[in-house]
Amino acid sequence: MDSVAPPESPQPAPESARLGRADLDRAAERLAGRVWRTPVIRCDHFDALSGTRLWLKAENLQRGGSFKLRGALLAVGELAGSDSRGVVAQSTGNHAIAVALAAAEHGLRATLVLPSDAAPAKIRRIREAGAEVLLVGTALAERVAAVEQLRELHGYDVIDPYQNPQVIAGQGTASAELIDQAAAEGVLLDALVVPIGGGSAIAGACLAADGRGPAVVGAEPAAVPAFTAALGAGRPVRVPARHTMADGLRPDLIGELPFELARHTVAEVVRVEEHSIARALRDAFLQARLVVEPAAATALAAALEHGSRWGQDIGVLVSGGNVDLDLVGPLL
Amino acid sequence: MDSVAPPESPQPAPESARLGRADLDRAAERLAGRVWRTPVIRCDHFDALSGTRLWLKAENLQRGGSFKLRGALLAVGELAGSDSRGVVAQSTGNHAIAVALAAAEHGLRATLVLPSDAAPAKIRRIREAGAEVLLVGTALAERVAAVEQLRELHGYDVIDPYQNPQVIAGQGTASAELIDQAAAEGVLLDALVVPIGGGSAIAGACLAADGRGPAVVGAEPAAVPAFTAALGAGRPVRVPARHTMADGLRPDLIGELPFELARHTVAEVVRVEEHSIARALRDAFLQARLVVEPAAATALAAALEHGSRWGQDIGVLVSGGNVDLDLVGPLL
Repeated sequence: MDSVAPPESPQPAPESARLGRADLDRAAERLAGRVWRTPVIRCDHFDALSGTRLWLKAENLQRGGSFKLRGALLAVGELAGSDSRGVVAQSTGNHAIAVALAAAEHGLRATLVLPSDAAPAKIRRIREAGAEVLLVGTALAERVAAVEQLRELHGYDVIDPYQNPQVIAGQGTASAELIDQAAAEGVLLDALVVPIGGGSAIAGACLAADGRGPAVVGAEPAAVPAFTAALGAGRPVRVPARHTMADGLRPDLIGELPFELARHTVAEVVRVEEHSIARALRDAFLQARLVVEPAAATALAAALEHGSRWGQDIGVLVSGGNVDLDLVGPLL
Repeated sequence: MDSVAPPESPQPAPESARLGRADLDRAAERLAGRVWRTPVIRCDHFDALSGTRLWLKAENLQRGGSFKLRGALLAVGELAGSDSRGVVAQSTGNHAIAVALAAAEHGLRATLVLPSDAAPAKIRRIREAGAEVLLVGTALAERVAAVEQLRELHGYDVIDPYQNPQVIAGQGTASAELIDQAAAEGVLLDALVVPIGGGSAIAGACLAADGRGPAVVGAEPAAVPAFTAALGAGRPVRVPARHTMADGLRPDLIGELPFELARHTVAEVVRVEEHSIARALRDAFLQARLVVEPAAATALAAALEHGSRWGQDIGVLVSGGNVDLDLVGPLL
């Protein structure tokens, strides 16, 4: 595992990045009663292993199996009462499940574009929610192009997983709850560890942490270090998409909006090796009795290996639990 | 799955059974800060499947992986400051893990007697806690005899899993928390479903439910219907110990104290078939993203299949999560 700190950067965030605390609070209000307030879980074994106290925000227990329902409910909700013909979105899986569920709640058609190597469990859940699935290539750019075609062809509204401010504010409510739930136990978190795929989770975490204390740490697979590359280049740049078991973290390019929101706030980005992801997934199962997907295990692995450097109380966004048995079986 | 209601019985509980609400409250006070206040988890899929709302008390996330730490901490704690030479207990596994952890906290030696077909994961955890493990036969009576021998030989204090009032009051705090946590959401539970092994969980649940509303329902493996047999006979009677995957529910005889505490309160006992236990365990993994052991899955299965008969809000004691990968692998 390797890590980088972002370079100093004097320029202010652009206009587009002016999402703030108020947006997050509004998002939380609108989501109240529509998503579970998932528990924050402690585990003696993890505390011993990390040499610090880990506070696990169990969004694997969220409706739809990941924190992504938060953003999708808000973004799709914006269309309610409009004459929308339906929604379309691309995703490695969890945003797609979330959009499918949100669309079903609002009686909207939904078409979801996933990579051909998407987790079968995720594809199945989207279909169970009554949405259509289109499998396109393996690269983000191919999916984005397919979404654009569907938008032009059918007039669907696009629910972008990275560029939509509602989505980012919604995802941020998970981190905000974690900070609140720790505070209710008398604990000010020293750091918040969040997995990085396209960037919505880390951008949301930066909104949530703003002015509230915790350093925001990102965790990305060493195989797809898109945020690290973006920090180096000063803008999102495409990285070679090597294979990672963390299917949710395969985007080879960070979204522009999340990058602008997060780049000046992120304290550190840890690149997590595959064997560390596998071990954290297994430990979550056996020691914390939680079913987590590899993306969540990536954040957990970073916290287990580096947490004690960041302080005494470390929050971890356990982002989702939509895992394939074919993957988990051999790991266990 | 089959079920029986207890026969009407006019005779009062004997003196030994006069554990009451006050004992439970004292137990909760003494345990505060020593066990996790585990979350109560909701799951859309389970609600749809059961036709009612399930409130899952996730004691699989408890320290030591089951609710049994509650009773063990209290019972072993009684010996602290005495000149105890150590403790000994028999158990199918979770009480043994709990006694081992509690003894370690109090700096006491611990020897645990388990059946030779105990779950390897449970044996490992006991040894990790620094305690000695003795594997003896497969029947409860053999383990009880071994405990008696060790007591005579070494002068150890016995931490009985069924007859010790501290243990039962401690176990009851899990059900009491569940009732409180649902109430905090504005919900009065209609029923509380609890697995039955030796009887401490159901006796504790009866204490917790007393005067607070929920009907108490027991769930036992159809293969080992020890509580059903006891209700029929009016006293604990040994049943043929057929094989069940629910290793925690293998005792072939209900303890006398728990039976006396529970017999007049239990509304119904459901006998759960093996295939239902397996399905609930699998659903807990895939749909609720919780690792549960078969004993917990037994209660969950009863709630999924019968919950809607009992009302609109059904609490389930998800008793533990110490499961063997060898068992779970093929099920998943």
